[in-house]
Amino acid sequence: MPDLNPDLVRRIVREALDEDGAFHDVTTLTTVPPEQRGRGVFLAKDHGVLAGLPLVVAAFAAIDPSVQVHASLVDGAWLEPGTNIARVEGPLASILSAERIALNFLQRLSGVATATKRLTDAVAGLPVRVVDTRKTTPGLRALERYAVQVGGGHNHRFNLTDGVLIKDNHIAAGRSRGLTLGQVVSAARSGAPHTLRIEVEVTSYEEAQEAVEARADIILLDNMTPAAMKRCVEMIAGRALTEASGGVTAVNARAIAESGVDIISSGALTHSAPALDISLDLEI
Amino acid sequence: MPDLNPDLVRRIVREALDEDGAFHDVTTLTTVPPEQRGRGVFLAKDHGVLAGLPLVVAAFAAIDPSVQVHASLVDGAWLEPGTNIARVEGPLASILSAERIALNFLQRLSGVATATKRLTDAVAGLPVRVVDTRKTTPGLRALERYAVQVGGGHNHRFNLTDGVLIKDNHIAAGRSRGLTLGQVVSAARSGAPHTLRIEVEVTSYEEAQEAVEARADIILLDNMTPAAMKRCVEMIAGRALTEASGGVTAVNARAIAESGVDIISSGALTHSAPALDISLDLEI
Amino acid sequence: MPDLNPDLVRRIVREALDEDGAFHDVTTLTTVPPEQRGRGVFLAKDHGVLAGLPLVVAAFAAIDPSVQVHASLVDGAWLEPGTNIARVEGPLASILSAERIALNFLQRLSGVATATKRLTDAVAGLPVRVVDTRKTTPGLRALERYAVQVGGGHNHRFNLTDGVLIKDNHIAAGRSRGLTLGQVVSAARSGAPHTLRIEVEVTSYEEAQEAVEARADIILLDNMTPAAMKRCVEMIAGRALTEASGGVTAVNARAIAESGVDIISSGALTHSAPALDISLDLEI
Amino acid sequence: MPDLNPDLVRRIVREALDEDGAFHDVTTLTTVPPEQRGRGVFLAKDHGVLAGLPLVVAAFAAIDPSVQVHASLVDGAWLEPGTNIARVEGPLASILSAERIALNFLQRLSGVATATKRLTDAVAGLPVRVVDTRKTTPGLRALERYAVQVGGGHNHRFNLTDGVLIKDNHIAAGRSRGLTLGQVVSAARSGAPHTLRIEVEVTSYEEAQEAVEARADIILLDNMTPAAMKRCVEMIAGRALTEASGGVTAVNARAIAESGVDIISSGALTHSAPALDISLDLEI
Amino acid sequence: MPDLNPDLVRRIVREALDEDGAFHDVTTLTTVPPEQRGRGVFLAKDHGVLAGLPLVVAAFAAIDPSVQVHASLVDGAWLEPGTNIARVEGPLASILSAERIALNFLQRLSGVATATKRLTDAVAGLPVRVVDTRKTTPGLRALERYAVQVGGGHNHRFNLTDGVLIKDNHIAAGRSRGLTLGQVVSAARSGAPHTLRIEVEVTSYEEAQEAVEARADIILLDNMTPAAMKRCVEMIAGRALTEASGGVTAVNARAIAESGVDIISSGALTHSAPALDISLDLEI
Amino acid sequence: MPDLNPDLVRRIVREALDEDGAFHDVTTLTTVPPEQRGRGVFLAKDHGVLAGLPLVVAAFAAIDPSVQVHASLVDGAWLEPGTNIARVEGPLASILSAERIALNFLQRLSGVATATKRLTDAVAGLPVRVVDTRKTTPGLRALERYAVQVGGGHNHRFNLTDGVLIKDNHIAAGRSRGLTLGQVVSAARSGAPHTLRIEVEVTSYEEAQEAVEARADIILLDNMTPAAMKRCVEMIAGRALTEASGGVTAVNARAIAESGVDIISSGALTHSAPALDISLDLEI
Repeated sequence: MPDLNPDLVRRIVREALDEDGAFHDVTTLTTVPPEQRGRGVFLAKDHGVLAGLPLVVAAFAAIDPSVQVHASLVDGAWLEPGTNIARVEGPLASILSAERIALNFLQRLSGVATATKRLTDAVAGLPVRVVDTRKTTPGLRALERYAVQVGGGHNHRFNLTDGVLIKDNHIAAGRSRGLTLGQVVSAARSGAPHTLRIEVEVTSYEEAQEAVEARADIILLDNMTPAAMKRCVEMIAGRALTEASGGVTAVNARAIAESGVDIISSGALTHSAPALDISLDLEI
Repeated sequence: MPDLNPDLVRRIVREALDEDGAFHDVTTLTTVPPEQRGRGVFLAKDHGVLAGLPLVVAAFAAIDPSVQVHASLVDGAWLEPGTNIARVEGPLASILSAERIALNFLQRLSGVATATKRLTDAVAGLPVRVVDTRKTTPGLRALERYAVQVGGGHNHRFNLTDGVLIKDNHIAAGRSRGLTLGQVVSAARSGAPHTLRIEVEVTSYEEAQEAVEARADIILLDNMTPAAMKRCVEMIAGRALTEASGGVTAVNARAIAESGVDIISSGALTHSAPALDISLDLEI
Repeated sequence: MPDLNPDLVRRIVREALDEDGAFHDVTTLTTVPPEQRGRGVFLAKDHGVLAGLPLVVAAFAAIDPSVQVHASLVDGAWLEPGTNIARVEGPLASILSAERIALNFLQRLSGVATATKRLTDAVAGLPVRVVDTRKTTPGLRALERYAVQVGGGHNHRFNLTDGVLIKDNHIAAGRSRGLTLGQVVSAARSGAPHTLRIEVEVTSYEEAQEAVEARADIILLDNMTPAAMKRCVEMIAGRALTEASGGVTAVNARAIAESGVDIISSGALTHSAPALDISLDLEI
Repeated sequence: MPDLNPDLVRRIVREALDEDGAFHDVTTLTTVPPEQRGRGVFLAKDHGVLAGLPLVVAAFAAIDPSVQVHASLVDGAWLEPGTNIARVEGPLASILSAERIALNFLQRLSGVATATKRLTDAVAGLPVRVVDTRKTTPGLRALERYAVQVGGGHNHRFNLTDGVLIKDNHIAAGRSRGLTLGQVVSAARSGAPHTLRIEVEVTSYEEAQEAVEARADIILLDNMTPAAMKRCVEMIAGRALTEASGGVTAVNARAIAESGVDIISSGALTHSAPALDISLDLEI
Repeated sequence: MPDLNPDLVRRIVREALDEDGAFHDVTTLTTVPPEQRGRGVFLAKDHGVLAGLPLVVAAFAAIDPSVQVHASLVDGAWLEPGTNIARVEGPLASILSAERIALNFLQRLSGVATATKRLTDAVAGLPVRVVDTRKTTPGLRALERYAVQVGGGHNHRFNLTDGVLIKDNHIAAGRSRGLTLGQVVSAARSGAPHTLRIEVEVTSYEEAQEAVEARADIILLDNMTPAAMKRCVEMIAGRALTEASGGVTAVNARAIAESGVDIISSGALTHSAPALDISLDLEI
Repeated sequence: MPDLNPDLVRRIVREALDEDGAFHDVTTLTTVPPEQRGRGVFLAKDHGVLAGLPLVVAAFAAIDPSVQVHASLVDGAWLEPGTNIARVEGPLASILSAERIALNFLQRLSGVATATKRLTDAVAGLPVRVVDTRKTTPGLRALERYAVQVGGGHNHRFNLTDGVLIKDNHIAAGRSRGLTLGQVVSAARSGAPHTLRIEVEVTSYEEAQEAVEARADIILLDNMTPAAMKRCVEMIAGRALTEASGGVTAVNARAIAESGVDIISSGALTHSAPALDISLDLEI
């Protein structure tokens, strides 16, 4: 079900290759003749989840359609050091010119998928959904959301246009104009498309109560302790979905999930996931 | 001297705002009236080097030219937790819609600058240049290179088109056709623009000797110990620039630099620098 | 609250001017000297709602920033034949070259707003929301949705990405694989972002029951009689929002609304609204 | 002979699919597995002229090249309610995601072709050409002009750059500077490429005389009665082409044509043609 | 009356600056501090017609809006060696980075204008129009046509879409299908917009007769001697415009014009005009 | 080794075809039926070097993939009047619509290659490299550099970003701030990527001495006599590469080369190379 728009993939990969000057690789042009062929394997060098094969395929295809990529695995596969991910074969010059960009995408997205898998594993068996945030790399949001799905997570709203999240500052802005939280929620509900749920960020039990009374569809419990979240969840009692955010790690995720929240969101999945170590070993 | 193409800044910021749906922020549109004004301050929450102010300015300007950003500092300034970076003032709705993108860029670039500063500090006083690599975020290479400069580093070649770096695979490709390293270097030199230096990657003393004999302009000592590098540097004796790469960290950088190399390159500066924690605190 | 992304406006207007060859208007270039000035007024020639002034302003600004547009009204104003909408003044050649595009947008969007107003007037006093659909003009969806808001309506989901609407074919596809409607709804809910409501299209009382049991958030009653809709609404009893669609007109809208549905959607608002007659009368 | 630039078709269709979020159709992605296949038929539900098949083909091809479209007819065919237009077959998910955009184009262009056919039928047997105007949908002019051709009409100038039409305001502008109509025509002729005919808009017999004397190549008789047009045509006596415009409908077109004009132009062909009712019936 | 779309100018200049890497001029960035100011003058070094000042202005504005360009002349002015064209003043670094692109455009367009002036001077006093062709530099057609106007010439059709020119191959294609030249002309006339004149290329007196009989609006006399053209012109006797083409030079233009043709077209105006020598002399 | 980015070729060719209106060639659409086939040969009409075949192939492919181009030669081949370059075969209408753009590119690039060949022939046997400059046609730099390679030349830096060339104005700017040439060179070296050589323009023996002392990597001897250059080369004695520029022609090139310089650069290769005469002869 994780899906990637193939046109988007082609466009982003092409721009990355352009940025890297890969269509005029002076070193390779001057040292490797076009007829020399090569082959290589993408090998995992660490433990993690594979994500990004479509970008690898697209990178070589953009440089030279005659390069063949034969994947041994599909995105979502678990990697161990030494796992053979894919073989690439074709004109060596083409392989060399696209190598770096292929790896840059594969390592980055596998890193995101791996970080997500760590979090979903941490809450395994609990009825909770791990989701991403808007703290993504500029230009790569769709790719990183895909990697989160590959890692077993779900996606939050894509952006400011297609979801409603009333944050502390929106509430404060309303209060400064004499509005209650309930009135702010009503304003959002009456202006937003009826297809969108209304989510409200709260930082205390009292605010959570207020949000429930305002008939928020989703209540974001921000930076609370698991215990405080548990109290909120019990008070809310299914009247709204509950989402936990703030400093979620693989270490504290289970405790947070055990508070009974429906959703755990983590910006670190996308802004701090270290790249997964993967190499392309060529046989020449 | 670090410079950023203002058009590039505008284009990248606009694309990031588009990706984030910031021009149609449903929550803000429905809860904050256009005439309500707000103000806030960007505050550092950690130690590091500031980088990315032009992107902050561009983000607010793109959403609403009437938002004012008053910077207290310039890129390159050292931040402590609590340091006031800049004030922003204008229509609150506009501030809220651009906040996330402004922060995403500022935190990421300050992270890169900070990582670079750690490395340049580590080699302070030694005649060595710290440089970046091509392991940058797709689409953001120019920004990240700027951040490296802000942090006191220098840039390597921008991409495959504007620099020559003969890697192990290029050499192997030549050898498989019966060419010596010297012949591969000659091929590169005779085909590349005369304005480019010829850099050759080596992994042993013997290869370094071969590269010197081939009259390489720069010799990249890849993944050697500081001791091995020192031997190479002494053997090379100024006949070529020397660059060290492979697993460089703030911990081992000084030892590497003391080997006498001219340049230290680090992919981690751009692919692994953690974002620097910076927040926008609004007064409403 | 209706809002239009000013960048989008600029881009769409420029493309329309380019398509119309307005930057090289041979007739005007050869017959009207650049220094000749002119002025004119936009006059309504029919009854309706004004929508599209920002596009008029953008059209003249794109051709010649020195053309001044002084609006007497704002979008949303009610027009009678003869109502003065705006004055335009500046180089006559510039006015002539942009006139057609300015009018094309103004007439079209005012047409949409007027059609919407007819529908919202028809249901005045009833707790129902009139919304648009995806049957918009390719390339102009955001503008037409704005015009719907200007006319007093609301917007449905923007597109297939930012809303879930399980249609008859999705349900049939599931049934052909042995799934119940409830299972199809569950599949959508478990895959879609938690910020989106799940809407289900039904065509009978029985299907509506099934949808309620499947815990659909919104039930789209497609092509039912008002009486049938009333039965469904009573059965649903607030457990889901209800939306009526299919052949809605200003004539039957009130009867439909009186069935108690929460939302009425109409494709005709955007795909069949006749342009509102507006002219630009020049004084030369 | 009606022709459509295939690149333009691809670009416009892709932009429409992007606008519709069709490359990430959340409902379909979550409820229809990629391997489920489907088939359907495009069926006419009304009388009219088919136009737009290349856009239907392009829409499915853009979403998924494996979807097959087998047309039973070609653009220009006459449709009755129930006429089978084309079959579509392939992955059901792909069909569902592209359906709306395919229909939006097909219905709109068939509507334009049908309106044109009504007008050309009305003047059948008379030596007159029915043409479109610049009152087209922004962004879709080339498509709508194609539909006019498919419906048996011809095209007027594409835009302000590639044709000369001296309108009342151009003449008034000249007169205010002391120029006669003849001098205005001369100015246009001496500045415009020699490959363009010079067309002049007139609203009275006297102006028509003046235009003939000014050696206009085409005289546009604007908003005259058929009787008045007849007088003008007789006076012009073949010295210029004559074009009738203003309030042309299928009802009055024959009377207008019988005045002897060479060309009848109608903005309504493109700005007011109702969409033709066509559906895609799926078998699942 | 020569006019240049300012948006086109901005876009083309920006792309040229991008291609030249002018937004990151390493030499200037490292050797000239941003605060150092400079000034300079554009000086003609040869005789010719000035064309391209708007591109000079746009080039400096794109690099740095604070650079001031003060033109002493306007496009169309006659230059002698030493003529002061314009002063430029502002940050020296900005001036240096944009200098080459500004000169490239100015020299090229002044070259085209100068070549045109030579041809129009050669036919001074005769009732003939000198026009360009489609043999322009890819991407720069609009600029080069502007330069032709600046030099006193006129423009031919812009491209294949906005003019009809039936060439020898079109006629041969028709003949091979059994059509007469008259039938080919009729086909073009009945399919092309009525706003376009029908031009026919002929290479002999007999073909010219045939073209007149076919009621061609313009007859292109290709590669004939002045004497042969004269015979054709006399035979045509005003029933069509006549255009001479093929090997036109400043030397033979008058003889050609004296044959009585209405138009002389020259591809060399755009494809072979040598650049006019102009320099930017800086005072530092 | 000369290489052309195929994507760039496709993009530039498509833009040229769009500019030429080739996708809607009114003449051909109305006079040549789509089923009529044609064939033709590209024939040289002059002596020169062939360059640009990939653009010819791309032009026909963009208009109609069914057109076949069978090249008899490859870029770099020597042409005599009458040499058969390539055959083209397919729908005649498609051939006619793309003909002009195919020829425009082929003639222009063959012209550049031919001019380059003249220069490289002139210095045959001498150890000198002939290179281009930045005086290229805006938008076509990559193509023209390719043609220079095809003609036996080499490329200089691509643009301001990927090479360092300290010109007289940079030096003057430094001197005005009290810097020596050596200090200016040091500034460039310390700021530029270490992969770039530092080139310095000098106009006298004394400056050349200064540049050597400043350890410039390349010294550009601008507008010197061969004798003066020889003195400089002897003084420099291999401590830097030497490049000669200024007024280089096929006539004086050998004398310049015999001065011992390593590189000769010529702007005329790209800004003044006359198009090579090539025609497409159709058999219909």
